[in-house]
Amino acid sequence: MDKPREECGIIGIYSKNRNVASDIYFGLIALQHRGQESCGIAVNRDREISYYKDLGLVNEVFDAKKLSELDGNMGIGHVRYSTSGSVMRENAQPLVLRYLKGALAIAHNGHLVNTKKLREEYEQGGAIYQTTCDTETMAYTFARERVKSKSIQEAINASMSKLTGAYSVVVMSPKKLIAVKDPWGFRPLCMGRKGDDIVFASETCALDCLGVKFERELDPGEIVIVEDGKVTSIRDNCADARNHVCIFEYIYFARPDSVIGGRLVSDARRLAGKFLAQERPVDADIVIGVPDSALPAALGYAMESGIPYEEGFLKNRYITRTFIMPDQSSRSLAVGLKLNPIKKYVEGKRVCMVDDSIVRGTTTQKIIKSLRDAGAKEVHVRISSPPFLWPCYFGTDVPSRKELVAVNQTLEEFTKNIGADSLAYLSVEKLGLLLSEGSDGGYCRGCFTGKYPVDEIEGEGI
Amino acid sequence: MDKPREECGIIGIYSKNRNVASDIYFGLIALQHRGQESCGIAVNRDREISYYKDLGLVNEVFDAKKLSELDGNMGIGHVRYSTSGSVMRENAQPLVLRYLKGALAIAHNGHLVNTKKLREEYEQGGAIYQTTCDTETMAYTFARERVKSKSIQEAINASMSKLTGAYSVVVMSPKKLIAVKDPWGFRPLCMGRKGDDIVFASETCALDCLGVKFERELDPGEIVIVEDGKVTSIRDNCADARNHVCIFEYIYFARPDSVIGGRLVSDARRLAGKFLAQERPVDADIVIGVPDSALPAALGYAMESGIPYEEGFLKNRYITRTFIMPDQSSRSLAVGLKLNPIKKYVEGKRVCMVDDSIVRGTTTQKIIKSLRDAGAKEVHVRISSPPFLWPCYFGTDVPSRKELVAVNQTLEEFTKNIGADSLAYLSVEKLGLLLSEGSDGGYCRGCFTGKYPVDEIEGEGI
Amino acid sequence: MDKPREECGIIGIYSKNRNVASDIYFGLIALQHRGQESCGIAVNRDREISYYKDLGLVNEVFDAKKLSELDGNMGIGHVRYSTSGSVMRENAQPLVLRYLKGALAIAHNGHLVNTKKLREEYEQGGAIYQTTCDTETMAYTFARERVKSKSIQEAINASMSKLTGAYSVVVMSPKKLIAVKDPWGFRPLCMGRKGDDIVFASETCALDCLGVKFERELDPGEIVIVEDGKVTSIRDNCADARNHVCIFEYIYFARPDSVIGGRLVSDARRLAGKFLAQERPVDADIVIGVPDSALPAALGYAMESGIPYEEGFLKNRYITRTFIMPDQSSRSLAVGLKLNPIKKYVEGKRVCMVDDSIVRGTTTQKIIKSLRDAGAKEVHVRISSPPFLWPCYFGTDVPSRKELVAVNQTLEEFTKNIGADSLAYLSVEKLGLLLSEGSDGGYCRGCFTGKYPVDEIEGEGI
Amino acid sequence: MDKPREECGIIGIYSKNRNVASDIYFGLIALQHRGQESCGIAVNRDREISYYKDLGLVNEVFDAKKLSELDGNMGIGHVRYSTSGSVMRENAQPLVLRYLKGALAIAHNGHLVNTKKLREEYEQGGAIYQTTCDTETMAYTFARERVKSKSIQEAINASMSKLTGAYSVVVMSPKKLIAVKDPWGFRPLCMGRKGDDIVFASETCALDCLGVKFERELDPGEIVIVEDGKVTSIRDNCADARNHVCIFEYIYFARPDSVIGGRLVSDARRLAGKFLAQERPVDADIVIGVPDSALPAALGYAMESGIPYEEGFLKNRYITRTFIMPDQSSRSLAVGLKLNPIKKYVEGKRVCMVDDSIVRGTTTQKIIKSLRDAGAKEVHVRISSPPFLWPCYFGTDVPSRKELVAVNQTLEEFTKNIGADSLAYLSVEKLGLLLSEGSDGGYCRGCFTGKYPVDEIEGEGI
Repeated sequence: MDKPREECGIIGIYSKNRNVASDIYFGLIALQHRGQESCGIAVNRDREISYYKDLGLVNEVFDAKKLSELDGNMGIGHVRYSTSGSVMRENAQPLVLRYLKGALAIAHNGHLVNTKKLREEYEQGGAIYQTTCDTETMAYTFARERVKSKSIQEAINASMSKLTGAYSVVVMSPKKLIAVKDPWGFRPLCMGRKGDDIVFASETCALDCLGVKFERELDPGEIVIVEDGKVTSIRDNCADARNHVCIFEYIYFARPDSVIGGRLVSDARRLAGKFLAQERPVDADIVIGVPDSALPAALGYAMESGIPYEEGFLKNRYITRTFIMPDQSSRSLAVGLKLNPIKKYVEGKRVCMVDDSIVRGTTTQKIIKSLRDAGAKEVHVRISSPPFLWPCYFGTDVPSRKELVAVNQTLEEFTKNIGADSLAYLSVEKLGLLLSEGSDGGYCRGCFTGKYPVDEIEGEGI
Repeated sequence: MDKPREECGIIGIYSKNRNVASDIYFGLIALQHRGQESCGIAVNRDREISYYKDLGLVNEVFDAKKLSELDGNMGIGHVRYSTSGSVMRENAQPLVLRYLKGALAIAHNGHLVNTKKLREEYEQGGAIYQTTCDTETMAYTFARERVKSKSIQEAINASMSKLTGAYSVVVMSPKKLIAVKDPWGFRPLCMGRKGDDIVFASETCALDCLGVKFERELDPGEIVIVEDGKVTSIRDNCADARNHVCIFEYIYFARPDSVIGGRLVSDARRLAGKFLAQERPVDADIVIGVPDSALPAALGYAMESGIPYEEGFLKNRYITRTFIMPDQSSRSLAVGLKLNPIKKYVEGKRVCMVDDSIVRGTTTQKIIKSLRDAGAKEVHVRISSPPFLWPCYFGTDVPSRKELVAVNQTLEEFTKNIGADSLAYLSVEKLGLLLSEGSDGGYCRGCFTGKYPVDEIEGEGI
Repeated sequence: MDKPREECGIIGIYSKNRNVASDIYFGLIALQHRGQESCGIAVNRDREISYYKDLGLVNEVFDAKKLSELDGNMGIGHVRYSTSGSVMRENAQPLVLRYLKGALAIAHNGHLVNTKKLREEYEQGGAIYQTTCDTETMAYTFARERVKSKSIQEAINASMSKLTGAYSVVVMSPKKLIAVKDPWGFRPLCMGRKGDDIVFASETCALDCLGVKFERELDPGEIVIVEDGKVTSIRDNCADARNHVCIFEYIYFARPDSVIGGRLVSDARRLAGKFLAQERPVDADIVIGVPDSALPAALGYAMESGIPYEEGFLKNRYITRTFIMPDQSSRSLAVGLKLNPIKKYVEGKRVCMVDDSIVRGTTTQKIIKSLRDAGAKEVHVRISSPPFLWPCYFGTDVPSRKELVAVNQTLEEFTKNIGADSLAYLSVEKLGLLLSEGSDGGYCRGCFTGKYPVDEIEGEGI
Repeated sequence: MDKPREECGIIGIYSKNRNVASDIYFGLIALQHRGQESCGIAVNRDREISYYKDLGLVNEVFDAKKLSELDGNMGIGHVRYSTSGSVMRENAQPLVLRYLKGALAIAHNGHLVNTKKLREEYEQGGAIYQTTCDTETMAYTFARERVKSKSIQEAINASMSKLTGAYSVVVMSPKKLIAVKDPWGFRPLCMGRKGDDIVFASETCALDCLGVKFERELDPGEIVIVEDGKVTSIRDNCADARNHVCIFEYIYFARPDSVIGGRLVSDARRLAGKFLAQERPVDADIVIGVPDSALPAALGYAMESGIPYEEGFLKNRYITRTFIMPDQSSRSLAVGLKLNPIKKYVEGKRVCMVDDSIVRGTTTQKIIKSLRDAGAKEVHVRISSPPFLWPCYFGTDVPSRKELVAVNQTLEEFTKNIGADSLAYLSVEKLGLLLSEGSDGGYCRGCFTGKYPVDEIEGEGI
């Protein structure tokens, strides 16, 4: 589908005695929406780290045998969508390495924007790189600081002043499980407990599926260390830090049942629909959403506008990642195969179709056509986020500007090209209202405005 | 999940010149919900039948290469869920065979109830059986009648007086594509056209995904023959025939966007919810449905009762058929992994949870517990169908009576055992109202009443 | 390689109490050279037959899990090379079926020459065919005779007068394990014992690998029945029967360590080399064989001629069945990759290269070129069998006559085309001497002479 | 089987314009005997390195599609047997990395003995390790020297004074293909040409299969650089270097058709047999070899002793790497399944059985038993190498001393335990005679004598 893609989901679990591999596996299944290309698990038993990672979905990569070979009372896991054109198995995470102080495993969600400079510095010292991930530069930074530090957490603490960008990270050393959130707080990272177990995860839905009680989110700049069951925190980098959580987590990325910054994601989406209905009303007979992600926004739009909400499409659940069109000529059938308009509900109707975002616009065009074929009299498109106009440097895969329809076509052109009767977006101004009222209100909306919360991005003069 | 299982879905396509393998593939993807264990496609080019079938989902069994090897301007396809304990590759369909008059391919949805007698007769003549499917007995009947008949359609026509039970079938001979519905009309089978193409399919959703216009359903007892692009019909067995469509197609089996007997399946489910609300009202704060199948019934219940409809669960779309729990001890997590209650929506609420059916009841118990863990104050269960009390002999996999919770526990016991505050079912009397008003009103509800529309079932004195 | 292909290998094992699946598996591994396309095992425990078969080598199709699911104290196994252009999974054996008297499993090596007539007769009675194997017609014959017979062995006995052609068969009924050899004795089939276990196998090498003591070969026309551990024999069809064992079993098909008709196969090949040296001497410095099959013949040639035997080629053992040339242009490398001439041994030498047979001649040409490239001064080719001139109807895959080089080119042309200095074959007259002296001397050499031991072959007026 | 294992084979190809991926693939197929656990290919087109590597045999890991994705006019390849207990995909080679000067790919055969010290030094500078291969330390050494050097070849040259141990290596930089042999010359590495193409390979058999003409072996300590088609050599480390080629390459590792140090490997083995016959004669009726590796030694023994050489065993070619015994109880059958004694040739005979080496002795015991079961009257074992008594630190996987039968049992005990009538080894003194007469006569025999050609091995005081 025509959506930006999240790059990663992470989880880390510490238990006194239990083997945690199965729990990490379940947690990754709950986080699978954050990355479907590769996944991995690293566990630690008595300072020995064992791990497995490969390309594929969590339940494709791991089976009972593989999990049984991963023995450890603490561990970390990762799901990944790779942004590079070629899918490299070498880039799968956790990144597991050995350095001066033994083994280290790292699972990273986000993207650094100053690795070029750091990498040059390290290479001048003879460093070698085996992946194309920025996470490897992070690892070098940790390793180099570790030489000068008393502990891994101090090395991480010292590294943070050198690393710019998005990094929600779980790190496992021979004796510790450590969670880190960058000082800008781009990507979610929360913490929960169940008995003596401590769990870190990208989203609360991973805690829920494990029956773990949510405790709190990490603060921007915070380092949380679990050692021998004790939890401590280093907050040296928290002082000037402020939340800039990616607003697109609320709009599309995160799972609707997750809570970020005190806001249920599904509620944020309903709110977006509500504001959209206020800003961009339409005279229609029914409101429908493009399944699954836009259904809450459509519901919000319907409730606010008073126009009846209807089930507009049947989504075929058997069209999976591995589904391949047999030949070129059949490509045009793909959308209809995945989303079948329910004729009886749309026929003869003026339809307000709510979606959460548009990147290239090609899919939208096909969906609109299928509605008209099913007898819709009018199709009014409402998008519960502003138009994508700028790149994201912080861990989201938005295509290059030349592919973004909002950059290349005027609203009028685009409306006409996709065959809509009208098309409107949510305004940038409303985005802040999606956050919970009790939150500090900080978020990143760089992809809509071109304004980013960091001072400098390599190669870009901000 | 704790549901009966449909056994099969079928499709048949005739085109003047086009290669139809891709279309059959797409149609089977649309019918995948009717059977996930095996699938197959047989095509015919100039009287030569080629085919491929195997265990697995449609997009696992077929890839571009396999489809490109299936060349033909007519063909049939099948998806199957096997009812026997062991999954046998040999039982995958279409059944492709050679007999006196060349090749024949058969795809069958339904189940015969008099094969034992027929089989004994055929075996006395030296017949050998290579599958455990009743379809093989049907094939023998066709072949034996063919010896005495002028054409395959006459052979089928003659066979129909010998075959008792459910059989919606597509048959492909060297020159013809034939669709057959048994005189009781147990299983749906419809017909559509697009230009010169003629398509038969179990459900209209398969027509939709191919852009084919629905023409009509086959009548009970009808044989439709396509030869050289001309469509003819044999109706000798229609005279005393009457529709007894499986009511569970409306309640659970068919895809919500399919239309059966003039009734949109999704609407039938909403109606079931509406009648349930009338018959079995409850004092609750919200109505939620168990995804995905019970959502329309929940919506119907909510609309009729005036109680707000809420999204109660997040369903994990990555828990697929191949997902396997790594160990026994983790089984209890399975339901929570698949369905996560959305705490914010259910916490502190009196919940009316609508589901469409209960077989063994074990899953329901776990779902109720998860709602309570999420803070639901009360959980009232409403089932949009009557309790299962009897076996189905006509192509549905209902477990044996000793496994049916409604047979083995009183309503009070069951309510208590699953931890519900109340539990109620739709009455048998309302079932007929789910059908469209213009329909002849015939349907089979044998699994609820023990009364079946055939005179005799082998081994059972009805 | 440029060789005819054997179609099948079979094994059957009866044990009092032991599970025999593993033994059948091992036996099939030992018989793998007789067929590499598909394989299968059927076992019987208390009259219940379970089985598994698929395309692939024995150790690809079966693993520990699959074998553990095959529980039975008797069973049969099959390896197959299919002669039809398309590899059909449906044709894999054992053929397992149900008929009047319960289950029956059949594993067949050979080929019938009168199935067309039988099949028409059966189809007139309404028979259906699900494979393209003649074995299915054999099964129908058994099933039809069974209706009139008191036991399966009597049905088989009666069937034998109806079946013309090659059939070494093992059959498993609910209570019996039965081995059958056709009255012409085309294909080998032997019997051995180990304690109470009774084993039938295509070749003695399968007995050896199981530590089973060879007892005897079946006689042409004999039926051996094992029931409750007792062995009996029906010899009604033995009276006029006479051995016509395929001479190519000695020349190429059978494993060198097998004993057929009292003759060690490796010795038969050495003898062929010896006779070849007598008939077709050459003035050369060394004798080399084309690995692996022609090495014994080369040794025989060398010993008889007094010319030193040398290791001429290194055969790469990692070029397996699944090895695929990456592109068309690299095809020419294939032979060199598989067979590397050992330069030091052939350089500057007049080489006598012994091979056991030539079908199309293309490979021979490449091998000769590689010898010349390695510095061989002369290359004299000696073939330890006569030229292929006629089809085989009895279970061997010899290409059609238009592909046989001996049919299409004179000896002079062929010698020149492949770049040999001389080329000579063993004479037809010597073939009989390959058999053991104590044997009755019967064998089939139809592929060399066009004279076959049966009266009529369908479609051929002999 | 009971053999030491070679760790690796390498190949590097430079071509002006041609794509070399297929050639590297073919070369690796020819070198497959040097490592069967993992393999990989890296190619370079216009400074861009692309690569693929995975666990498995060469023709399992690569297919036409994978090869077509590897586009480049130079490249390197690697086959590997891993010595660590767990097979790590991460350790597959070529090691491809990015460093100060762009990309670098390394394929290494051998083992370093001073990586511990180097690694500590590098880790003190913040180095991270992602594999458990010593090759990664070599890469760091290259990268660190590169910072101070004008070119990659100078960096390698400077690195060589820091690296102790065995390393035959091919390196590919953005513009160059470089081959390196350590100053001790432990592992073979040769060079050939075909037109403008230049090929480096572990063994000459890889040149043969590509039709490439052997030019010469690299000298110990030599660096050969190919840039823009020009070949240059750096010989700074050759001055004090001397060949210490692993004598076990001649005895067992290398392919018989390869030439090392001017000696055909097959001839070296025949010589070993000849010397063994001189030193350890036996009164026997036949000499047989254990296939395949000991056949040349057996032939040499037979020719020298005048005792007839006989084919003692049939080796089943279908028992491959992936063959797995279905259950524990069937383990005892494994040897017999793989090697079947040819009864007719050994029955009643006094057998001299030649093998090339014994590590643990368990397999030998089973083979002897199988010969006795086949009727051998006496079994005299002759080993064409001295007893293993010491570890190998230079790239061979000899088990730990406590597993070596020659360390733990006296010759008398061992002879008795394996059931041999006599047992004798080749003397250490004869090893030097296996080399070609024109060679400088240097070789390593440390595994037999405990004396190694390097001054210091980490953790071992030599």
